Amino acid sequence: MIAPPEELLNFLRTEDNFIIATHFSPDGDAVGSSLALWYALKGLGKNAVLLDKDNIGEQYKFLPGQENFRTFSTLQSPKSYRNLILIDCNDIDRITLDAAQAHILKNKYSAVIDHHESERPFGNIRWVEPHIAATGLMIFHLLKTLGIRIHSEIAVNLYSAIAVDTGNFKYDNTSPEAMNAAAELIKAGAKPGMLYRHLFESWSSGRFRLFMAVMNTMQMVGDVALITVTRKMFEDTDTTPDDTEHFVEFPRIMSDVEVSVLFREIDDNSYKLSLRSKDDVNIAKVAEIYGGGGHKNAAGCRINKDITTAKAEIIAHVKTAIAAK
Amino acid sequence: MIAPPEELLNFLRTEDNFIIATHFSPDGDAVGSSLALWYALKGLGKNAVLLDKDNIGEQYKFLPGQENFRTFSTLQSPKSYRNLILIDCNDIDRITLDAAQAHILKNKYSAVIDHHESERPFGNIRWVEPHIAATGLMIFHLLKTLGIRIHSEIAVNLYSAIAVDTGNFKYDNTSPEAMNAAAELIKAGAKPGMLYRHLFESWSSGRFRLFMAVMNTMQMVGDVALITVTRKMFEDTDTTPDDTEHFVEFPRIMSDVEVSVLFREIDDNSYKLSLRSKDDVNIAKVAEIYGGGGHKNAAGCRINKDITTAKAEIIAHVKTAIAAK
Repeated sequence: MIAPPEELLNFLRTEDNFIIATHFSPDGDAVGSSLALWYALKGLGKNAVLLDKDNIGEQYKFLPGQENFRTFSTLQSPKSYRNLILIDCNDIDRITLDAAQAHILKNKYSAVIDHHESERPFGNIRWVEPHIAATGLMIFHLLKTLGIRIHSEIAVNLYSAIAVDTGNFKYDNTSPEAMNAAAELIKAGAKPGMLYRHLFESWSSGRFRLFMAVMNTMQMVGDVALITVTRKMFEDTDTTPDDTEHFVEFPRIMSDVEVSVLFREIDDNSYKLSLRSKDDVNIAKVAEIYGGGGHKNAAGCRINKDITTAKAEIIAHVKTAIAAK
Repeated sequence: MIAPPEELLNFLRTEDNFIIATHFSPDGDAVGSSLALWYALKGLGKNAVLLDKDNIGEQYKFLPGQENFRTFSTLQSPKSYRNLILIDCNDIDRITLDAAQAHILKNKYSAVIDHHESERPFGNIRWVEPHIAATGLMIFHLLKTLGIRIHSEIAVNLYSAIAVDTGNFKYDNTSPEAMNAAAELIKAGAKPGMLYRHLFESWSSGRFRLFMAVMNTMQMVGDVALITVTRKMFEDTDTTPDDTEHFVEFPRIMSDVEVSVLFREIDDNSYKLSLRSKDDVNIAKVAEIYGGGGHKNAAGCRINKDITTAKAEIIAHVKTAIAAK
């Protein structure tokens, strides 16, 4: 049972004038959850604005209401808003404002709604549930508890939020609650096929060429797949590092691959690594050796060596991690 | 509401000695649905056997109970079974037995449970629901109506059946009913992340190399993507045409691509085509020109011309289809 705290319900029912803010480089869960709450507060007759440092990614430009996001500098009289709601993050620094802007927000009465592990507690009211698949799933139950009708604009945003954070229902976090919410959101107007195409099939042709160039570099060393992306590839395909999102997951499509590693060239003899493993292989331990970190099956680090040395070292450490599983 | 017909319920409750048969080259819905029903009949204390012409695909070998499938020739005394249940197909010919074997089955009292459009009616009891996403979803409601407990072996089989036929919940057929069933099956023991990896991430390294070889052939002509697979590529990668499943869908990941076409070389100057389109582009009309067919967004045909002529003709017809949308 996903139950929002009573003080959060009271806060939303009794207060007015909210800034809804989310983290930089907002993903689908951040954008969709914020928009759904914004529609809900509007529906309650409240005044609310949407704040983000960064532009909404192209793949989220179809989300109803997204044109209402503001940056801090385009926000009309930010001091006039009494309340702040932080969505999909629980640390004011994840909004990355300058000191003066952050000061204004920190002085507001604040509520946090998030499903990430907390490091530095922030917020007068905190509803943080790391075991829940998506912030969108929390917002879904929040709106239902508040008795707000899930109209189609809300449904599309919440479905998208849940779909993005569960990898369209393929990650281990895909829960019965996520599925039941998705069912209700489909009934309310979300179209799974169309939303999948918007969220996951909106690559540019440059990104596709980058994908091919990167996959063509693949080396298999036993059950370890190594792929590489160079600065020249970005130039050649008119793409950016953001376009490599999910690339490192792709070699896992082979049943023989236990670990996949993406080497992204940052500078001469300097690489950013993304590592992915299956099941019981703890790849975070490899990342930690180089001062990085992450989770058991998804981690990252940086390594300042020539590519031959870097690969040889990583292969050795990864093989140790596989042997230890 | 998905409601099995009363006569089917009576048939399963009162009869005994069932052959459960499904179509050749059984997919995940065929295998998972058959197995779930087999477990259910066993649970009711009935005698039932599982029949398929073909071996179960490697990616389905993890499904609980799959080792109980028999071919006709390894079936002990097929005449001793009074009843036949056809799963995920509604035509005895889709089982592709020889005439003598087919004769034996045709003489049995038979029930059909399927979600495909019907061409040639077969079966004393027919429960055919083309608007339902998967036969597995029908079996789910059948078992619930019969009051059968969904234990974990049944849950894994039914979840897999539904996942395969909805493209892991990304196709347009993903319904609230499919999502609610998935939720209940997860509670009963299905593990979405693990099942996704088994069902969709079990490529051989040869299949991966084939994928890269095929994608490297891609030509973009406006919003049409053409990819080609040759007989030599199968040889080089130790793969078969089955390994190209879903390849034609991949170029659609680009937002600019309206239609994707895979040319598979059958012989000199002879190609089998798979066509996929987005949204309102009716690609079946192109396939029909060459004596093929299919649905609006997924069709196939054969063309006996040299590759240059074949591509030029197809591009022209596809562009007409795009213009007509």
